[in-house]
Amino acid sequence: MELTHIEHLGIAVKSIEDSLPYYEGVLGLKCYNIEVVEDQKVKTAFFKVGQTKIELLEPTAEDSTIAKFIEKKGEGIHHIAFAVPNVQEALNEAAAKGVKLIDEKPRRGAEGLNIAFLHPKFTAGVLTELCMEGDK
Amino acid sequence: MELTHIEHLGIAVKSIEDSLPYYEGVLGLKCYNIEVVEDQKVKTAFFKVGQTKIELLEPTAEDSTIAKFIEKKGEGIHHIAFAVPNVQEALNEAAAKGVKLIDEKPRRGAEGLNIAFLHPKFTAGVLTELCMEGDK
Repeated sequence: MELTHIEHLGIAVKSIEDSLPYYEGVLGLKCYNIEVVEDQKVKTAFFKVGQTKIELLEPTAEDSTIAKFIEKKGEGIHHIAFAVPNVQEALNEAAAKGVKLIDEKPRRGAEGLNIAFLHPKFTAGVLTELCMEGDK
Repeated sequence: MELTHIEHLGIAVKSIEDSLPYYEGVLGLKCYNIEVVEDQKVKTAFFKVGQTKIELLEPTAEDSTIAKFIEKKGEGIHHIAFAVPNVQEALNEAAAKGVKLIDEKPRRGAEGLNIAFLHPKFTAGVLTELCMEGDK
C-alpha cells in the first residue's frame, strides 16, 4: 500500500467551543472550517499543521460513536487517516492481506473526502481511515 | 506558538514484533530504527509517513507509563508531538498562557530530539509533546 502522508487526525472532544482556547490560543492554530456530519452525528472543526489536518470531533447525540468513545476512553485521539492515491485499490490490497474492512467501498466524509475505515481489530489498536480527495 | 508540522505520533503497543506485520506488511511502511529508551522503560520502533514519524512504544517493564496506559485504555495513540523552532520558547509561551508543564526544560528523547511534554489536563485530553532536533 502506498501512504503519501497523514491526511488528518480525528480527536474526540466533549466540546469544540471549550477546546478552541487550547488549539487557537495556546498552540496558535487557526480553525478554518466547522462542519456537521449528520450521518456520523458529529460536529467537526478543522485546523492544519504542516501536511496534516487536526479534526476535532464533538458528538451531537448520545448514541454517536464519538460519545461512546469519550465515555469509554475519555477525550483523546480517535483515529488516524492516511492519504492514499486510490482508496478502493488500498482497500482491496488490505482485504487481500486478511484485514477486515468496516467500509468495503469508499464513502463521502467531511471536507468532501472519499474515506473508508479498516476494522480496528486488524490495525494494531488504532482506528485507521484511508482517504483521498473526492472524485478520484 | 509556531508549530511547523507533526513530528511524530507515539502509539502504545503491547509488542512491536506483533505489530510489524500490520505496519510493514499491510501499510507498506519501513521500520528504519529500533531503540530502547531506558529512562522511559520503552522500546521504540520508527516509521516515516510524509513529514511525520510513527513511533511505536512497547513497555519494557510493568511500571512503565506505557504499560499503565495500555492497561487503562488499551493499545492506541498515546501522544502527539509537534515540531517547534525552539522548545524552551514554546514552553515559556505555554506556561505564560496558564498551561501546566510536565517538563520545565527540554530533555533528550529518542532519536536525539529535544523534547518536553505539556500537562494533559491543559491540552484538551491529548498528551502533547513539543520537540525539535537536538543541539538547538
